[in-house]
Amino acid sequence: MLGAHNSFVLKGDIAFSEDLKNIKTIKDGYVVSLDGICMGAFDTLPKKYEELEVIDYKGSLIVPGMVDLHAHAPQYLCSGIATDNELLDWLNKYIFPEEAKYSDLEYAKKSYQNFANDMKRGFTTRASIFGTMHTDATILLMDLLEETGIVSYVGKVNMNRNSVDALTENSEDESLEETRRWLQSIEGKYTRTFPILTPRFIPSCSDGLMKGLGELSKEKGLRIQSHLSENVDEVKWVKELVPESTSYANAYELFNAIGEKTVPSIMAHCVYSDDEEIRIMKEHGTFIAHCADSNINLASGIAPIRRFLNEGLKVGIGSDVAAGSTLNMLRMILVTIQASKMYYRLVDSSLEPLTFEEAFYLATLGGGEYFGKVGTFKEGYAFDAVVISDENMAAKPDNVRQRLEKICYNDADAVILSKYVDGKNIFLRRET
Amino acid sequence: MLGAHNSFVLKGDIAFSEDLKNIKTIKDGYVVSLDGICMGAFDTLPKKYEELEVIDYKGSLIVPGMVDLHAHAPQYLCSGIATDNELLDWLNKYIFPEEAKYSDLEYAKKSYQNFANDMKRGFTTRASIFGTMHTDATILLMDLLEETGIVSYVGKVNMNRNSVDALTENSEDESLEETRRWLQSIEGKYTRTFPILTPRFIPSCSDGLMKGLGELSKEKGLRIQSHLSENVDEVKWVKELVPESTSYANAYELFNAIGEKTVPSIMAHCVYSDDEEIRIMKEHGTFIAHCADSNINLASGIAPIRRFLNEGLKVGIGSDVAAGSTLNMLRMILVTIQASKMYYRLVDSSLEPLTFEEAFYLATLGGGEYFGKVGTFKEGYAFDAVVISDENMAAKPDNVRQRLEKICYNDADAVILSKYVDGKNIFLRRET
Repeated sequence: MLGAHNSFVLKGDIAFSEDLKNIKTIKDGYVVSLDGICMGAFDTLPKKYEELEVIDYKGSLIVPGMVDLHAHAPQYLCSGIATDNELLDWLNKYIFPEEAKYSDLEYAKKSYQNFANDMKRGFTTRASIFGTMHTDATILLMDLLEETGIVSYVGKVNMNRNSVDALTENSEDESLEETRRWLQSIEGKYTRTFPILTPRFIPSCSDGLMKGLGELSKEKGLRIQSHLSENVDEVKWVKELVPESTSYANAYELFNAIGEKTVPSIMAHCVYSDDEEIRIMKEHGTFIAHCADSNINLASGIAPIRRFLNEGLKVGIGSDVAAGSTLNMLRMILVTIQASKMYYRLVDSSLEPLTFEEAFYLATLGGGEYFGKVGTFKEGYAFDAVVISDENMAAKPDNVRQRLEKICYNDADAVILSKYVDGKNIFLRRET
Repeated sequence: MLGAHNSFVLKGDIAFSEDLKNIKTIKDGYVVSLDGICMGAFDTLPKKYEELEVIDYKGSLIVPGMVDLHAHAPQYLCSGIATDNELLDWLNKYIFPEEAKYSDLEYAKKSYQNFANDMKRGFTTRASIFGTMHTDATILLMDLLEETGIVSYVGKVNMNRNSVDALTENSEDESLEETRRWLQSIEGKYTRTFPILTPRFIPSCSDGLMKGLGELSKEKGLRIQSHLSENVDEVKWVKELVPESTSYANAYELFNAIGEKTVPSIMAHCVYSDDEEIRIMKEHGTFIAHCADSNINLASGIAPIRRFLNEGLKVGIGSDVAAGSTLNMLRMILVTIQASKMYYRLVDSSLEPLTFEEAFYLATLGGGEYFGKVGTFKEGYAFDAVVISDENMAAKPDNVRQRLEKICYNDADAVILSKYVDGKNIFLRRET
């Protein structure tokens, strides 16, 4: 028999990125999962797959699962309610006090369950996520994410300075020891939830801690995620904290904490990344998590994504809740386009706005590459898919490409019917 | 018996603007409609209203209906699918050809029905709307809007130059005669749908046509809606077309087509309005329809709303579909805030971002003032209300004010249960 587990065909109106510039669409097409691997998308079902079960989603859109390269699970309650400050004040006023609550495992359990539920019912199939500095709460978060069926990197945060007392690790040693305890506790525990080293950002981590994490990354082949050049005051502060650095990215580089091509790091934001930072990120194969919604909400600015793409950097999209206001990746596509238009209009008219094709690519293949062959319906890619009904939309174009664009601008009318990760159905809308 | 028609009490979590800076909230409160007029919102129901039926929406949010000061009904199909050009190219490429189709009443009927349906099921209770140049299709639009129960101003568009042939009136006389035929045909026909004179914008109307519309406005006491200073190229063009004008607003002024305080006009956009335009709008009591979503989508720029508010100008919000991508007024509140943050960050850091309070005010009371005593739950205001369930929101704060903010950032989880205009229930969600 052809295929065993997770082998089937979805039928419907299919759309996926061929490359940065092109979206391929097939009306009433077929996309094939064989043992969780995509065998391609077709106008007519190839004979060799005729034995497989066909799940008919006629009239609905079928797109690759979306990838959220940057989100803070413990801040989720604060999303969309507390964006009246800029970064550093916002952290002190809202976020550090909220994250401090995660020393309480009961609180953590309830809050992380909300986060996991919304991840499960949303457009995201893969994500890279910050926990808090609390080892046990972070393990709880990983347990809950594993249950959702989503594939994720999750990090216990390291932070030993410049926070409130209740959210500061006592020493470099304690922070590193807790990190090792965390890694040991979860060894072999999960099939789709992976640890990632997570120094909060330079201002939160002493030189010795950053260096220790760099060594740990090397020792265990672990990836790193952090923040880079988000806010003007933050960038200035980093220069004061690491006076020998020639740029914020160089500060990570000095501590060997920015990864390498085979073990790539994720750096969120890069709003103020200059020539040197671009060079450093290119050299180290860094993935930029572009968080336009967050950067606007905290009035940080707008990252020059067109420039990064011209330079051949790797770019994905991060919701960055809770500075970002929602986990909804359709809205992230929209805000990414809108931010690029404002950058073009108000900052640099030589950098053309992103097209819909490009923003959709960033949300699927762009971030997907961080997870391997992920983010499109070409042969050999992981079978991650979301089936979306747009039947509530009254004024609906016929064209599949336009319908896809339209749901990004009107996400309240985009209803997820079903979601697959590695060919496994992890969400199915109940008919009410 | 107390009150007759449209007299009742809504119970739930109430929020409304007291003024530009303050939102009043009442958890488990009461808001009273007496003959369609709001009698106020209360912690406990006053004795004198105890006879009235109490409709219990415990746990749901109850807010004033929202006001959309600028939308193009015939463009609705194009919303969210065609924003890869700037204004003038976008009009020629997508919009004029689409509007030309409304000479066909069958097409108009189907399309306008979609628009009316979405208006009815959305957050909007009052609106000011553009039709096309076609008299009969515009009457059809008014018929359909009247049926929704929403209160609206609707305009047959005037345009006799600089469009495609199929969407150009043959002469000034024809345009003015058709306008009179339109006004005559609808005289006494509606109870909540009102005509408004609608010269498309200066580039579409010859001097004589603008002058004729100015005279008609005077003769019949009719209001005017149009566009002002949306796009750099447009502003330049207006200066060429009306060389004697000292500003775009002055061009309207020269033709007596910018209204007066007792018959105020709506001018959409005002992205590039300078000192002189501010003075002119103040003098004429003009309402600015701020269309942030549209202005970003077409890369027009961002209007300096903080400045307009500092100057005491009247400002409301317009969705401006189809350059705006949705009729969803919650998203318009969000984009209004986000646009103001980008203006602050990238254009002028002396103009502070709008607060949530201010943006909510603009979407309710700000635009509401155009319709009289509309847009809040104070005593004596029209009873326009929307009941919204946020129970799908997993990570939900307790605080009513924060819940209100959160649904604007996560509108896909804001489900309208019920909507009232002048105390009349015009939408009720069916339980499925």
